[in-house]
Amino acid sequence: VVLRDRLLAAVVACFKRHGAAAIDTPVLELREMLVGRYGEGAKLIYELQDQGGELLALRYDLTVPFARYLAMNKITHMKRYHVAKVYRRDNPATTRGRYREFYQCDFDIAGQFDPMIPDAECLKIVHEILSDLQLGDFLIKVNHRQILNGVFAVCGIPESKFITTCSSVDKLDKMPWEEVRSEMVGEKGLSPEAADRIGEYVQLHGGLDLIERLLQDPKLSQNKLAKEGLGDMKLLFEYLTLFGITGKVSFDLSLARGLDYYTGVIYEAVLLQQENDHVEEPVSVGSVAGGGRYDGLVGMFDPKGRKVPCVGVSIGIERIFSILEQRVEASGEKVRTTETQVLVATPHKHLIAARLKLISELWDAGIKAEMLYKKDPKLLKQLQYCEDTGIPLAAIVGEQELADGVVKLRDVTTREEVDIPREKLVDEIRRRLEP
Amino acid sequence: VVLRDRLLAAVVACFKRHGAAAIDTPVLELREMLVGRYGEGAKLIYELQDQGGELLALRYDLTVPFARYLAMNKITHMKRYHVAKVYRRDNPATTRGRYREFYQCDFDIAGQFDPMIPDAECLKIVHEILSDLQLGDFLIKVNHRQILNGVFAVCGIPESKFITTCSSVDKLDKMPWEEVRSEMVGEKGLSPEAADRIGEYVQLHGGLDLIERLLQDPKLSQNKLAKEGLGDMKLLFEYLTLFGITGKVSFDLSLARGLDYYTGVIYEAVLLQQENDHVEEPVSVGSVAGGGRYDGLVGMFDPKGRKVPCVGVSIGIERIFSILEQRVEASGEKVRTTETQVLVATPHKHLIAARLKLISELWDAGIKAEMLYKKDPKLLKQLQYCEDTGIPLAAIVGEQELADGVVKLRDVTTREEVDIPREKLVDEIRRRLEP
Repeated sequence: VVLRDRLLAAVVACFKRHGAAAIDTPVLELREMLVGRYGEGAKLIYELQDQGGELLALRYDLTVPFARYLAMNKITHMKRYHVAKVYRRDNPATTRGRYREFYQCDFDIAGQFDPMIPDAECLKIVHEILSDLQLGDFLIKVNHRQILNGVFAVCGIPESKFITTCSSVDKLDKMPWEEVRSEMVGEKGLSPEAADRIGEYVQLHGGLDLIERLLQDPKLSQNKLAKEGLGDMKLLFEYLTLFGITGKVSFDLSLARGLDYYTGVIYEAVLLQQENDHVEEPVSVGSVAGGGRYDGLVGMFDPKGRKVPCVGVSIGIERIFSILEQRVEASGEKVRTTETQVLVATPHKHLIAARLKLISELWDAGIKAEMLYKKDPKLLKQLQYCEDTGIPLAAIVGEQELADGVVKLRDVTTREEVDIPREKLVDEIRRRLEP
Repeated sequence: VVLRDRLLAAVVACFKRHGAAAIDTPVLELREMLVGRYGEGAKLIYELQDQGGELLALRYDLTVPFARYLAMNKITHMKRYHVAKVYRRDNPATTRGRYREFYQCDFDIAGQFDPMIPDAECLKIVHEILSDLQLGDFLIKVNHRQILNGVFAVCGIPESKFITTCSSVDKLDKMPWEEVRSEMVGEKGLSPEAADRIGEYVQLHGGLDLIERLLQDPKLSQNKLAKEGLGDMKLLFEYLTLFGITGKVSFDLSLARGLDYYTGVIYEAVLLQQENDHVEEPVSVGSVAGGGRYDGLVGMFDPKGRKVPCVGVSIGIERIFSILEQRVEASGEKVRTTETQVLVATPHKHLIAARLKLISELWDAGIKAEMLYKKDPKLLKQLQYCEDTGIPLAAIVGEQELADGVVKLRDVTTREEVDIPREKLVDEIRRRLEP
């Protein structure tokens, strides 16, 4: 929890830095709102029993509830973040950070704006978060649904097969092209020639140079979808250059992303294999962030079909968490589960009153303090507790200290002890512990 | 969300000050774990559909999952807090802060310790939180299940009727004694004489003086349960005196608390009617915190019945939130939903590149910054956005500023503008906004 809280705090700090407001939608959604939004994911939705009243289900992600929220409240523009748990009836794979209940951290910009400005900001956010967390080298792959559709069109694929072809292309990060090709020809029924033509495009990746080259491509430049998509992509890369982040962004035509609702720019961040990784067997953790533009989703929830263009990003916090956790374990670093600054202790019997009075003063001054819940604990036990739980200071009061109006402040690591006048104790603790 | 986040942060800060570790249990519990733990509450449990696999339900509170967690992991002592949502199939009453999905904020101390030390700390926590939040005057009522049982015994109530009599007594905060008495005699079948004898006790409230008086009471002092309970209560008040909080604590024999699982000290905090309340029609919000000792619950989840004594407190965050929300509304104070410190603006066209470069520098320096998602927004629109959303500063770059290597920093409220050398901008923003 401590580690996850730190991680979430870093992500939320970035979202706030970009001016997003927090919203909170309920974990329970009307079942009908979720049905038919997730393609193959639908079978993983947790449904509630019909106990009278509405038919409910647990949210599956944060994007559909956000779109529903915008439509229901007739909101036409909003920049929001949402950090919350979602639920999937899946087989957990905890080492890779896959659970049935897990956090999603989403940032989305809804509204009709000038092209690529919000899209570029989403990529900047991914870049900031992955840099802040010091996860090592990473790469943000970017593509555009219209470019993919344009490629399919010029390769002679009928429009009815765009989505299914897209899902084959999406497997290129896990399979070699040859296997993807045979799936296209075998299962999806594309002609071998069409598949080969697609193969020439979807194995390309690069930067502004590749965009320029494709804009000159004799076939693609004739296709309206591809031309628009490439135009967007060029503008996006101009903005990313101003943000200074193109070094870690790759225009990658093999990126397709599974969800049906994307309509424009799509992206996915992956961690690159680390040379100096502390982990003995590197575990594949897949992508650590992803998102894209979905201009049609809000309209599906609006009775009049009013559209609100949206673009967003989701940070794969559980995967990042499992990496950080493995690193911390490998490093042997002990993560404290509490933040206690000082243990209030007594060196001999019959001093419970003195301990209660002193700890009460410390709490009231905002100091994080504990004491053992025993009337007459041994001093050794009290100091042992400090070492076991990582409490850095012990404030010791015995008869002598009470008589002298002082408290013996002990540094648990160095074992140094100094008598501090009681009225200066709080300041001294702060001085030692607060940077 | 902003207001609730502030409130939760204050509560969590107090829990951490007392050395508690955070734990997180799943929202989904096995249905059988919840059944039979909540008395009449059971019908409000949300159950999940049987989709294959385990029969699940949504958690109803955080105490039962905590007890289950301790038993499952064989933990014999722990101080933890848990802030999370719980679910009840209830009729919402939002003005009084009652929802189907709502936050609970629990702090519990589990373990075999010397009497009343952890119990006193729970009361100190309630006192600290209600003082910190400046909710106005409050009173913490304290009682003891064993004292109540002792009272029932000496009044001639058979043990089989203790629990049902307890639930009648529990209504004394909403009903006059006469009505409670007639429920006892009519519905619960107590003799009128027994009810009258109970009435003499349960209408008493006071402090150490009352405890002393009852310890001398000819009948109660002969009853083992009552004597033990009064002994606990005396020790508790001694500790509370050392904490300096007895002024707001009342030993109140009418406090019974509904849940069956309490075994010792019980308590409940109520807000007292405020003279200077901003609210026109004061809304009854009931208790704002409550808890007690439950020494038997963990044992119910342990296959060998091993007991782990526990005492805890739950802060009624939703009720407190509804009070704060009403106050904020009544005061006309505008709560900002974002924390943006500066809007990056341009005074004329063709400066999108300048804006993107500057905002990127600010983000990278940790400044919370926004810009409008338009290529060429009007300056007036940009300043209007600051006023609408409460952004205190605007950083304006035009051709002149670019040429001079400065940024015009505008205070949105005073409309004062100063040219700041670009390399000093971040420091200047921090100087103005950070205390």
